[in-house]
Amino acid sequence: MTAPLHEPHPSRPRLPDTQQGMRRRNLSRVMHTVNAEGPLSRAAVASRIGLTRAAVSTLVDELIRSGLLEELGPERPGRVGRPGSALALSGHGPAGIGAEIGVDHLAVCAVDLRGGIRAQAVRRGTNRGRSPEPVIAELTSLVRQVVAEAGGEGLWPAGLAVAVPGLVARDARTVVRAPNLDWHDTDLGALLPDDLPVTVDNEANFGGLAELWLGEGTPRDFLHVSAEIGIGGAAVVDGRLLRGTRGFAGELGHVPVRPEGPQCACGGRGCLEQYAGEEAVLRAAGLEPGEHRVEFLAERAAAGDEDVRRALQGAGTALGIALTGAVNLLDPETVVLGGALAALAPWLLPSLKAELARRTAGPACAVTVSRLGSQGPLLGAAHSVVRGVLDDPAAVGVRA
Amino acid sequence: MTAPLHEPHPSRPRLPDTQQGMRRRNLSRVMHTVNAEGPLSRAAVASRIGLTRAAVSTLVDELIRSGLLEELGPERPGRVGRPGSALALSGHGPAGIGAEIGVDHLAVCAVDLRGGIRAQAVRRGTNRGRSPEPVIAELTSLVRQVVAEAGGEGLWPAGLAVAVPGLVARDARTVVRAPNLDWHDTDLGALLPDDLPVTVDNEANFGGLAELWLGEGTPRDFLHVSAEIGIGGAAVVDGRLLRGTRGFAGELGHVPVRPEGPQCACGGRGCLEQYAGEEAVLRAAGLEPGEHRVEFLAERAAAGDEDVRRALQGAGTALGIALTGAVNLLDPETVVLGGALAALAPWLLPSLKAELARRTAGPACAVTVSRLGSQGPLLGAAHSVVRGVLDDPAAVGVRA
Repeated sequence: MTAPLHEPHPSRPRLPDTQQGMRRRNLSRVMHTVNAEGPLSRAAVASRIGLTRAAVSTLVDELIRSGLLEELGPERPGRVGRPGSALALSGHGPAGIGAEIGVDHLAVCAVDLRGGIRAQAVRRGTNRGRSPEPVIAELTSLVRQVVAEAGGEGLWPAGLAVAVPGLVARDARTVVRAPNLDWHDTDLGALLPDDLPVTVDNEANFGGLAELWLGEGTPRDFLHVSAEIGIGGAAVVDGRLLRGTRGFAGELGHVPVRPEGPQCACGGRGCLEQYAGEEAVLRAAGLEPGEHRVEFLAERAAAGDEDVRRALQGAGTALGIALTGAVNLLDPETVVLGGALAALAPWLLPSLKAELARRTAGPACAVTVSRLGSQGPLLGAAHSVVRGVLDDPAAVGVRA
Repeated sequence: MTAPLHEPHPSRPRLPDTQQGMRRRNLSRVMHTVNAEGPLSRAAVASRIGLTRAAVSTLVDELIRSGLLEELGPERPGRVGRPGSALALSGHGPAGIGAEIGVDHLAVCAVDLRGGIRAQAVRRGTNRGRSPEPVIAELTSLVRQVVAEAGGEGLWPAGLAVAVPGLVARDARTVVRAPNLDWHDTDLGALLPDDLPVTVDNEANFGGLAELWLGEGTPRDFLHVSAEIGIGGAAVVDGRLLRGTRGFAGELGHVPVRPEGPQCACGGRGCLEQYAGEEAVLRAAGLEPGEHRVEFLAERAAAGDEDVRRALQGAGTALGIALTGAVNLLDPETVVLGGALAALAPWLLPSLKAELARRTAGPACAVTVSRLGSQGPLLGAAHSVVRGVLDDPAAVGVRA
């Protein structure tokens, strides 16, 4: 299994425009309509997607047989005409399994087609410097545990998506570089379960997708900026993640902020990460990187620690400079601060917004804060599998 | 008429997946196949697009009736079976009319479906500080002249696309800001001919599209960097121009290079344009902006002028810094230097490439030079109309 279904790889040929391809796209249209507006009667679905009620009934029957839609029973009486049965996405069919390999933890969850989290498991403990095999073995055992738990509720896994803190190739399985794990050119696809369709992606990408799918009022064009140890970016353009030729797009952390600034591990100088990355901010606050984490900064800033607040103000300024370049290049509707940055927003935003405003003719790009925080990548991973089912329900086999 | 057909605006609903929509898409598929590989027989077209020969014949007949395809007569004898008649795009049907409003000139051309330039007209003379009405009146008279000349060869205008040196709103008619013309919030759509479908776009966008459609070996993911008076950028992602929410994406000229550098007209400081824009380079070479233009720099550099060469080296360094950020964000396959930059490439490239390389882990992004040079925007405009015809041939009415 390669790239997720909802974002066909450019090299994958489109379905020819045949009756069969049309049927598959119409099945998807029914699923998306019920997802966006359900529960809905067959007649309501038909009117929403502009097909006849008979055509929609055939599609709906197939989706019910595959366990993707459920009938909730007759609509409440009192309406004119024969009562229709309301359709909803199934709460007992396929589930998306999301997994996250963090520097300090592993997490797995199962999400049903309705978006409900039905099972989860977390293991704390550093993965820094561990080789991929034992880490993936542990992750796989968490996956088995979550799949078993979800299975107890009648759900079966439609696929597994894994978020990693590093650059992932467009094959959606090879980790090209994950500096904080010290993994290079690692084929995770070969280590992960082979009885499930598996997709591996960068955590910032899944964080951005989570914001697109689950954020409240998130537009279809935005730049998502997140931080755990490094700084990650994900550009969503017209509702699609911008991936780049090699899959490396969105590397905001390595945009030069001050071209003759400190040396960066990427080979550059004065990259954003040298001013707004975890280590840089901890050092600027007079704290020892390694002993403390980015979450700690929020506590200290809230408690009024002036050194921490000054360090975060400096990070906000650097973010504002890098984002000025990014906004000029991408022209997003908003910039969304996510991941650990969401918790630090009160102290980052004033200097960040001031910098953006003073560098922009006309109104500056809006900056908002994600409500998903550090849950974004895990939820984005699980939902990417669910979106794959909505996008091509015919590709999902029927299970008992 | 709003945005070009080949790039549907996000708010434009897709055609419903009906027989009628399928027919329109299949007509387009035939046109694109003949464009990419023609002349081809009906049988060859059928095998390329995976439809029956009978289905393709019906589509082809319709396209011949509309004047979009031509039969070249029987294929050369000697092949097995009944000889088929080779199909080609019509050289006498619709034409794309491209126009360019430059700071120092106006230009118009007509391109047929095969990509041949069939008529053109140019008027030299500055447009700086002139109000839009007389400029557009002059441009319109050039358009009439070119349309009449093309009409003499049996071509009729399928649409007019106008390249302007400024930011254009997503309505594809309003010039929001063209600093070098001193135009602001100008509705060019209201001034241009109303008997033709009209599209207005930024010259850098049309330059990037020209590179995509006409460049030799240009990939489907690249960043096009051009310069006339200002510096323009156009990001092409998976064969589509990245437009941004307001239509302002690709503003590479205002990416901060040195955050405390010289004040820029955009409101920022140390933007790329302050180091690599025409004025900045002329000043750095000890020349007077206004008296000389960017083309003059190439002559002087070629003649061995050390001041000019040093100025261009500095511009290359600044380009390298800004492009490092852009490459990190967009991950293009190549960067293409176009417009006036193409002529300056020999003196820009060494420092530009060195800067990109020293700031990049792993192999740096490739940098190539466009062959279209300053013809790009005009050709891109004309071809955008032609691509619109290929993308939805059914939308083009039949003319005598």
